[in-house]
Amino acid sequence: MSEIKFLEIPGYRWIPNGQSNFSGAVLDLFKALDGMFLRIADQAQAREFYFPPFIQAHELNKLDYFKSFPHLISFPVALDQHKAGNLEKFIDGPRCDDSGQVHLVEIDKVCDCLTPAACYHFYIHLQGQDLQEPIHLTTRAHCFRRELFYKPLQRQWSFNMREIVCLGPYDYVREFVKKFRDIVTEKLHKLNLGIEWDVATDPFFNPESNPKFIMQQLDPVKHEMIFNKELSIGSTNFHKDYFGENFGIKYQGEIAHSACIAFGLERWIFAIISRYGTNPAHWPLTEIQNV
Amino acid sequence: MSEIKFLEIPGYRWIPNGQSNFSGAVLDLFKALDGMFLRIADQAQAREFYFPPFIQAHELNKLDYFKSFPHLISFPVALDQHKAGNLEKFIDGPRCDDSGQVHLVEIDKVCDCLTPAACYHFYIHLQGQDLQEPIHLTTRAHCFRRELFYKPLQRQWSFNMREIVCLGPYDYVREFVKKFRDIVTEKLHKLNLGIEWDVATDPFFNPESNPKFIMQQLDPVKHEMIFNKELSIGSTNFHKDYFGENFGIKYQGEIAHSACIAFGLERWIFAIISRYGTNPAHWPLTEIQNV
Repeated sequence: MSEIKFLEIPGYRWIPNGQSNFSGAVLDLFKALDGMFLRIADQAQAREFYFPPFIQAHELNKLDYFKSFPHLISFPVALDQHKAGNLEKFIDGPRCDDSGQVHLVEIDKVCDCLTPAACYHFYIHLQGQDLQEPIHLTTRAHCFRRELFYKPLQRQWSFNMREIVCLGPYDYVREFVKKFRDIVTEKLHKLNLGIEWDVATDPFFNPESNPKFIMQQLDPVKHEMIFNKELSIGSTNFHKDYFGENFGIKYQGEIAHSACIAFGLERWIFAIISRYGTNPAHWPLTEIQNV
Repeated sequence: MSEIKFLEIPGYRWIPNGQSNFSGAVLDLFKALDGMFLRIADQAQAREFYFPPFIQAHELNKLDYFKSFPHLISFPVALDQHKAGNLEKFIDGPRCDDSGQVHLVEIDKVCDCLTPAACYHFYIHLQGQDLQEPIHLTTRAHCFRRELFYKPLQRQWSFNMREIVCLGPYDYVREFVKKFRDIVTEKLHKLNLGIEWDVATDPFFNPESNPKFIMQQLDPVKHEMIFNKELSIGSTNFHKDYFGENFGIKYQGEIAHSACIAFGLERWIFAIISRYGTNPAHWPLTEIQNV
């Protein structure tokens, strides 16, 4: 598989802050892929949600998120406009220097995070509820992961994630994961992407000292769709009662179990273009729209 | 017009950090409205783009943005993971306290902003080009404006903006604004929203001391669609050569002129629900899908 020449992809533009612009053929590919994921979600009659880009920090704190992933999280911040003279100080300062760096003054209290994974919104949304039926949900959200370096379509500061989530009793949710892993595998086979499933762990900070990492190693709950033996383009995650416990979500009076199937849109685009080349005429758009 | 009971809107959830979640009927309304805006964009055969949530600070700096709008801008920040011991210090600190406030440690260089207006992405995208034909473009983007207080659907920290942008010579762009203001007026009339157009200025910081504000007062370039005599749900903006000049965009060798039509999705939802009530059976969904 040869190196992709990103400048040759029609409608694609890499922005060096770790993000991608799409138009034309590559926007069509983006939409076709998300349409395919939505059809998968339809097989579970998943209810669709739109979620905004921020999550309140106190919600993520319920998961000890800041202890586990301090290296990945980004925060939206604004200048403190309650403090007299603060904005004037910013205006009188260098503001944005020749290197492109902003020189902040006092910032307002930070109480929010940029969404690290789409499905968190669902557990927050449902917290405190006692479900009477298993439920299926889906959303596509902007997700944000700070990295030490970025690579076009493969490793971005912001990217799109489509998720399909199920909550209910243990057996039901386990069966959901199994069934939808098979559905995804079949679609991947038809698109001839040469994906292999592999067991994975979440990218914890200092993993060896985090009991959650050790638990994941002992009892694998995450399976990734690995493209070309190196890039995960999606995953299934059987969280068991982790989110039910931390967000007080029940199923008929017992702690609910949950699982999600996640697709990284930009990485799927990368996989398609790696496999089929930069000429859109060779992309399997019709197959994607019909599998 | 009676006060909206937001809890009664099916599928709507207000998050007190200045954002809204949508599902069910209100998500259908969101999609129908954006579909209508896209059909308007189609009348100009506008090319559609997807843009990510961040804009590089050095690009906005070309517009003196930080001087004009320091009170509105938000920045994505991450903890500095290059500095030894910094993340450990964060983990050992309060991280997120009981009030929900995050206690940051050293943050990494800030070189990006959260998108303040959708159309900026286009001028950045096109900078340095010499256009041979007038062009029409459209995008729906997450936009971010820090405010001193937030109100559901009306004043949000993050919201969706659909824009239709035109670049070309002065006369052509002026005609574009006129034509599309008429198209939008006709649709607004059919939806019976009772909108009035009004001249407006941008929300500058310390407006009286900003020459840009004074210019806008002398020579109005922004017209807003005012709902119920108080809420702007969209606008037309004839920027003349402002963006062409600052981003070096030309039209056949001369500085290009530009204009945009902008629609605030959440505010349109607010207007529809204010006018027709919280029961989706009374919303003019079919009309929106067909006008």
